Amino acid sequence: MTKVAFIGAGRIGQTIIYSTLLSGVVDQAIIFDILPNLPQRFKDELMHGLGSARINTKIFATNSIAEVTDADIVLISAGKPRQANQSRTDLFNDNAKIMIDFAKVLPKNNPKALFIMVTNPVDQMASVFMKYSGRLTISSGAQVENTRLRSFIAEKLGVNVDAVEGFTGGEHGEGLSIFWDTVTVNGLPFDEAAKGRLTREEVATYVKGIAAQIIAVLGGTAWGPATTMRDIIVAVSTNENRVMSIAAPLKYKDETIHVSRPTIVGSRIGPSLEKSLSEEDQRLLNAAADKMYNEYKELINNLK
Amino acid sequence: MTKVAFIGAGRIGQTIIYSTLLSGVVDQAIIFDILPNLPQRFKDELMHGLGSARINTKIFATNSIAEVTDADIVLISAGKPRQANQSRTDLFNDNAKIMIDFAKVLPKNNPKALFIMVTNPVDQMASVFMKYSGRLTISSGAQVENTRLRSFIAEKLGVNVDAVEGFTGGEHGEGLSIFWDTVTVNGLPFDEAAKGRLTREEVATYVKGIAAQIIAVLGGTAWGPATTMRDIIVAVSTNENRVMSIAAPLKYKDETIHVSRPTIVGSRIGPSLEKSLSEEDQRLLNAAADKMYNEYKELINNLK
Amino acid sequence: MTKVAFIGAGRIGQTIIYSTLLSGVVDQAIIFDILPNLPQRFKDELMHGLGSARINTKIFATNSIAEVTDADIVLISAGKPRQANQSRTDLFNDNAKIMIDFAKVLPKNNPKALFIMVTNPVDQMASVFMKYSGRLTISSGAQVENTRLRSFIAEKLGVNVDAVEGFTGGEHGEGLSIFWDTVTVNGLPFDEAAKGRLTREEVATYVKGIAAQIIAVLGGTAWGPATTMRDIIVAVSTNENRVMSIAAPLKYKDETIHVSRPTIVGSRIGPSLEKSLSEEDQRLLNAAADKMYNEYKELINNLK
Amino acid sequence: MTKVAFIGAGRIGQTIIYSTLLSGVVDQAIIFDILPNLPQRFKDELMHGLGSARINTKIFATNSIAEVTDADIVLISAGKPRQANQSRTDLFNDNAKIMIDFAKVLPKNNPKALFIMVTNPVDQMASVFMKYSGRLTISSGAQVENTRLRSFIAEKLGVNVDAVEGFTGGEHGEGLSIFWDTVTVNGLPFDEAAKGRLTREEVATYVKGIAAQIIAVLGGTAWGPATTMRDIIVAVSTNENRVMSIAAPLKYKDETIHVSRPTIVGSRIGPSLEKSLSEEDQRLLNAAADKMYNEYKELINNLK
Repeated sequence: MTKVAFIGAGRIGQTIIYSTLLSGVVDQAIIFDILPNLPQRFKDELMHGLGSARINTKIFATNSIAEVTDADIVLISAGKPRQANQSRTDLFNDNAKIMIDFAKVLPKNNPKALFIMVTNPVDQMASVFMKYSGRLTISSGAQVENTRLRSFIAEKLGVNVDAVEGFTGGEHGEGLSIFWDTVTVNGLPFDEAAKGRLTREEVATYVKGIAAQIIAVLGGTAWGPATTMRDIIVAVSTNENRVMSIAAPLKYKDETIHVSRPTIVGSRIGPSLEKSLSEEDQRLLNAAADKMYNEYKELINNLK
Repeated sequence: MTKVAFIGAGRIGQTIIYSTLLSGVVDQAIIFDILPNLPQRFKDELMHGLGSARINTKIFATNSIAEVTDADIVLISAGKPRQANQSRTDLFNDNAKIMIDFAKVLPKNNPKALFIMVTNPVDQMASVFMKYSGRLTISSGAQVENTRLRSFIAEKLGVNVDAVEGFTGGEHGEGLSIFWDTVTVNGLPFDEAAKGRLTREEVATYVKGIAAQIIAVLGGTAWGPATTMRDIIVAVSTNENRVMSIAAPLKYKDETIHVSRPTIVGSRIGPSLEKSLSEEDQRLLNAAADKMYNEYKELINNLK
Repeated sequence: MTKVAFIGAGRIGQTIIYSTLLSGVVDQAIIFDILPNLPQRFKDELMHGLGSARINTKIFATNSIAEVTDADIVLISAGKPRQANQSRTDLFNDNAKIMIDFAKVLPKNNPKALFIMVTNPVDQMASVFMKYSGRLTISSGAQVENTRLRSFIAEKLGVNVDAVEGFTGGEHGEGLSIFWDTVTVNGLPFDEAAKGRLTREEVATYVKGIAAQIIAVLGGTAWGPATTMRDIIVAVSTNENRVMSIAAPLKYKDETIHVSRPTIVGSRIGPSLEKSLSEEDQRLLNAAADKMYNEYKELINNLK
Repeated sequence: MTKVAFIGAGRIGQTIIYSTLLSGVVDQAIIFDILPNLPQRFKDELMHGLGSARINTKIFATNSIAEVTDADIVLISAGKPRQANQSRTDLFNDNAKIMIDFAKVLPKNNPKALFIMVTNPVDQMASVFMKYSGRLTISSGAQVENTRLRSFIAEKLGVNVDAVEGFTGGEHGEGLSIFWDTVTVNGLPFDEAAKGRLTREEVATYVKGIAAQIIAVLGGTAWGPATTMRDIIVAVSTNENRVMSIAAPLKYKDETIHVSRPTIVGSRIGPSLEKSLSEEDQRLLNAAADKMYNEYKELINNLK
């Protein structure tokens, strides 16, 4: 019996919910959105799809956050999208206030829930929500980038995506670290497997730049990230103990921040595997943590 | 080895493709759309999602219809959407011309393919494509309505969707026939199971009206129909022999038209099960066929 | 919520139970066997396997038939195996008495259940159980032979098993009818697809003789038939509406007998599709029904 | 494309092969056994089952070890079962000789394969095979015990097996270590969750003793362990990166031995997570490693 609450049913939220329910691991779903009729009509769509797929999930749609109760997992994708000319600081401020509001009501009504953050800036929103709720919160972190890294290398080298292993971490997005010493193709180190056919630089350019290219054509990324979110929920609810580059909480100086690193994801989150990384990869991770701490600290201090 | 070509990667096309590839039954996919970069960037999204889901489908994205070759199944969702003030005749004419163009190139390059029509008006487009291509073409027909019927009854009576059986047919959409003698709940006839709690009229109102309500809020139906399309592809490619209310070709007077009725869907399409329907349900089906023939005949005769 | 009771946990029973539970469609299972500790220790094995597979089926093991209650499906594999020198009449008499005993207690404690017979002689035992219980009973019939037919043709012609379609029916076992007009390979009629590479006779020899060859080496058939039983349970419990050559009840003269023919299997059983068979195939089916009636009539009349 | 070779098709071998192929992750399977006709007739059974399940695995059955080539994974279950009065030393000697023979031919014909040992005494046989083949070899180790621990606690506390987390390790079998600091129920430490309802001692008694009880009634354990083997193969072939208590190679003094501990299983094996265990749990693991080294050293030195 897994009960999952989805806070937000916009474009990315809908894609995550659809993908997750179709996996069959969710027994009960709560769908919340502030827009009238939106969760209700989306529930109809889901009921039709699940009916075809012969999946018996019970769905409860609501416009009232107070009706989101007793979930095992709460996934938050609600919030404002980044506007064209909006600064990162303004986006942080706008969405942080929303998270602080959620933190007042969701934790007490969902006393056993794990919280998964999707709203951007995702790692910082996870930290804000955790700070104000006092509850375990993770973000998908760089796990989406793991799948970009692996699928691009597989495509370019003509192997199955299952044959490519490798982790990314640190910051989510353009400041991403690629832990090159973890990247293998059919068990061979990347440099050896790719020699003469693909360079580290080409991989890094793709992994860091593809999101912007997708957004330019499709208006946003949705299908790739949504599948990753689904797989995080599946890993938690089936206690899969799968290693993923999620951003789990990290106590750093006087704050709890969220930094992506290979982490075991099951009914428990962790341990993280930074000690299994090479010295060079650990150095990258530590530099990222320091930078992320400083950025977060400045933002959270200036939040009014 | 199943190779599926998807003609069109708009909103509904993307949802169908995502859902179908995630089912794992497709070994090779071809994605065609005329918009530059659209199939290519959507392929990136899919690669990331499939990488997370550990599915090794090979995807080929193209803007050239001539590169769509050797598919086992060709699903066509390309075409113009209905404009606000557009008549049904104008929509028919616009999309029929597109189908006739496709019929010149797709059949000869895909000599073994089954063609599945999604473009609206869907049953008529299936007939047009089949007329001009000479190739077996089906449409999803009223199978989407089957899932709406079953999931609504399940929700209202508080049973699992698997416990509700029942078929619709005839016209796709508002002129739909519900074959009430096939509708059961936990094996009991609908009227007996629903007595005092749900009426035939309430069910019919929902099944025929819910699409418009979804469109009003979400801008279109996608998740429900896409899952049904996925399940038709799964049934064909795994030879599932599942009974579905698709619109298979029906020789009627001097034309081949597409009329929805319970039909066995596997590596072969059919037989259709109209003879297993009750007399009353057969009467509904025959009336629908006659009406659909007349409408189609007028449209196709006036097509220039 | 599907609750399945398994009556008998011998070699074939264990294989069916394992395969079925691993499919994930069963929420609650009851395992009955008269041997002390057998269902209990087998339950331990299953719990370990399901724990690995992350499936949460609740299992109740019992040596008391009175504790088998409220199942949606009751599958009966209990009974005596055929002894080396035992006549078919003696086997019928031995197991018919067991079925009559079960018919006194299982139906009233499982008022909504569908009964599925596995005990040999399987079609006759289904008829005996249905006669004495007054409850809908089916047997797997010739569905196992369908899979033998299809997999042998696929192997010999080098195509995927999904590409081969075809149904068998009539008697289960050596008197089996092959409905040749339903047999296709990639949509082509068998004779055309197999020309020069495989004959009807070779196929018939394999389909009718392979069970004996397997028994000679492995001591019994289990893995193949068990998977078929699993798929019948899956089709019923998920309302799959899959066409299978099960033996559903057939009113013939003054008796209800069980004769295999293509039948829609979902939350309801039927309709059967004999009317969709070719004239020649219908002739084979009718001859089989007549022969099976006569044999059953003689056996049931002489049963003391 | 995953190609898996199964060396041995006895009772446990058959159960593993069936379970693994039914998972759908294997594209090609090789089944080897020395008994004439055994792999061939078992292949027939599998073909029938996979035909029903619509899985297209290609199977090659052989009595010649030289025909086992180019596999990605080689699972070895062949060998002599322990006789009633046989000493552990005699069993070691008998099966070690078989492994040394296999080590002469399998590695060179399967240059990319991962080797998985199932033959008993399983951890020692893994070490012998790795010593003589020079190739990466793992055994299922204590992963079977993990599933026994988790499913027993779930059953006794009335929770889903997914809600119970916990690892065992060290020796496979009766000398097993339970890493109590990893055992949680719905995220709570075991002692807190189980207070007054279940003791550590009851759990340990079950986990260490249930195999003997199953053997006494069923003649051997098969269904539970086979599912675990399947899940190891699935984890490797889909690069699942799942944490399992397999026995991976451990360099200990002058030998490579196999000691069970939580280890990441994907397309690569490892890293092992002993450093994430509590101090007390690490102490248990180290003591086990030392004992296992001494036993293995004595056996391998006396092997003639």
